[in-house]
Amino acid sequence: MKRIAIIGAGMMGSAMSIPARDKGHEVRLVGTPLDDAIIAHARETRMHLTMQRPLPVGVVFYQFGEVRSALAGVDVVICGVSSFGVDWFLQQALPLIPPEVPVLSVTKGLVAHTDGTLETYPSYYQRLSGRGGFYAIGGPCTSYELAERRHSAVAFCGSDMATLHRLRSLLSTNYYHISLSTDVVGVEVAVALKNAYALAVTLAVGMVQRQDGPDAAPAYNPQAALFGQSVREMTALLKLLGGGPENIAYGAGDLYVTIFGGRTRRLGTLLGRGLTINQALQQLEGVTLESIVITQRMVQALRTRGQLAQFPLLHHVGKLLDGEQADIPWAALITPPQDKPGARPCI
Amino acid sequence: MKRIAIIGAGMMGSAMSIPARDKGHEVRLVGTPLDDAIIAHARETRMHLTMQRPLPVGVVFYQFGEVRSALAGVDVVICGVSSFGVDWFLQQALPLIPPEVPVLSVTKGLVAHTDGTLETYPSYYQRLSGRGGFYAIGGPCTSYELAERRHSAVAFCGSDMATLHRLRSLLSTNYYHISLSTDVVGVEVAVALKNAYALAVTLAVGMVQRQDGPDAAPAYNPQAALFGQSVREMTALLKLLGGGPENIAYGAGDLYVTIFGGRTRRLGTLLGRGLTINQALQQLEGVTLESIVITQRMVQALRTRGQLAQFPLLHHVGKLLDGEQADIPWAALITPPQDKPGARPCI
Repeated sequence: MKRIAIIGAGMMGSAMSIPARDKGHEVRLVGTPLDDAIIAHARETRMHLTMQRPLPVGVVFYQFGEVRSALAGVDVVICGVSSFGVDWFLQQALPLIPPEVPVLSVTKGLVAHTDGTLETYPSYYQRLSGRGGFYAIGGPCTSYELAERRHSAVAFCGSDMATLHRLRSLLSTNYYHISLSTDVVGVEVAVALKNAYALAVTLAVGMVQRQDGPDAAPAYNPQAALFGQSVREMTALLKLLGGGPENIAYGAGDLYVTIFGGRTRRLGTLLGRGLTINQALQQLEGVTLESIVITQRMVQALRTRGQLAQFPLLHHVGKLLDGEQADIPWAALITPPQDKPGARPCI
Repeated sequence: MKRIAIIGAGMMGSAMSIPARDKGHEVRLVGTPLDDAIIAHARETRMHLTMQRPLPVGVVFYQFGEVRSALAGVDVVICGVSSFGVDWFLQQALPLIPPEVPVLSVTKGLVAHTDGTLETYPSYYQRLSGRGGFYAIGGPCTSYELAERRHSAVAFCGSDMATLHRLRSLLSTNYYHISLSTDVVGVEVAVALKNAYALAVTLAVGMVQRQDGPDAAPAYNPQAALFGQSVREMTALLKLLGGGPENIAYGAGDLYVTIFGGRTRRLGTLLGRGLTINQALQQLEGVTLESIVITQRMVQALRTRGQLAQFPLLHHVGKLLDGEQADIPWAALITPPQDKPGARPCI
């Protein structure tokens, strides 16, 4: 039995309490200052206010003002903030965490610097805090389904394999399946753009509804064409940034689950129907803007690097988010002819 | 305007008449001896009997007994047979086709030899016929949706790039988007196992129904876990057989469209609910067995090569098709730890 503190009581952070409690650990769920209502509600009802799923018996809830007691004697901290909360976590939470305690982050995305360079969150935290011990979770796993104990396959990544093994032994269950990798760039880059490309694929859902009416039967050839292009562009990003190509399996899985995951699909579908981003956001009041901001940051970074043309589908999504109205660039899905010598008979 | 003969009036072969006619070509659709009813019905009604979609005005229909007139003066032949028809095509149709006429095949799969070697269809045709000019279509494209002129992205592959360009110019439309590649092994291997892995992913659909009842809301974490593993195994097969890794984009797209494509999904779902293969086939009377046979052939070939252990999910599907009852091997989804040196900050 270990002591695990989760800082950030959003859906994904909170869902991590389920495998942690199922392994018998002492679990302390600490809200950020934005999570006051979630923590108050959970204390009263044990239900998570936004995820609408019960949290396990034995989880102890803390408002952020109580973070010091929550961190007393912890063995591991799980960082549950969204990409908007990264700098808050760095400045307000990290200084309170003993340097020998590893920090496992659920946040997905990359930091995009103004000079066009990109950085993983573990690297960003380490560079700015001066301490080490940062680990991250990649791969396809929605909070709702983790909370329902659905089979989920993820990757824990970070610089020290021994610590990765320890983190896995703390959290792996018969439904939460954890691969390990020290290829932080590979895992994090592979899954960073899942929201952007899930928007891209679901444009095809809206496009069919625009042609055939809102109750049209779904068509999968167009979605699959955009899915294939998304895998192509995510692979190119892996190559560009030096991650191992085998990590595309995490990226493809994460894209798959995000396409069917709710808010991103609804936004992509509306954009595919021909609505502008402002019209779409009006229909989706209350939708998280995280996927939009991440996409815009990445588009800007690749533009600054002069490499945006390698990512025509991402570029297209960026244009839509900038308010442009444009049809899906189908011609961009045709790859340059691949001319490789040497046909071989039996292989 | 060119003359195009399609031999094999199944759904995919017949659907190829739509882009061909939209480009203004003279199109002759020739049934195999198994397609007599399809051809007779199309002559009367212009509807395709099994696809239940209209075929374009101007397509001329031929029973196989009339194949010689159908082939008179043709510029291109499209081979529309399923993998069961490959040897028939080789023996009965190919000798009638002038050697300078290229043959473009829609058949997906690989030939598995008893010694464990594998072979693409273009290579198989060339080796056994002694003539050249074989090309193939890979990538995500269901016949129904091609017939509805949905946007579809495919790859034409074969040994001669100039001929590939010519084939593309004959068939590309504003909805049928064609990439070109001489990496026949890469394209064909990437998409060969789409049926096997679509069975694998949809096991998770049935598994959830088995737990929560037939009307259970779908869960996507488990499907995404199996999707990621499928991409991993398809990539490993590409590497094993020497195809370019970038072709996984076709494989992932083809897997995506096949998961939502009907018969394979129904079979995978029933197996996932815990039915044996015989019980499942009883419920699905009339279902094509092509996906089953291809999977079994590939499992046997990899077993003979001593390489089946590299493909645990394919191995599992093979067991189910052999009548075994077994749970999804979730532990096999955990990859061996990837330990790569060198964390880098900004990238």
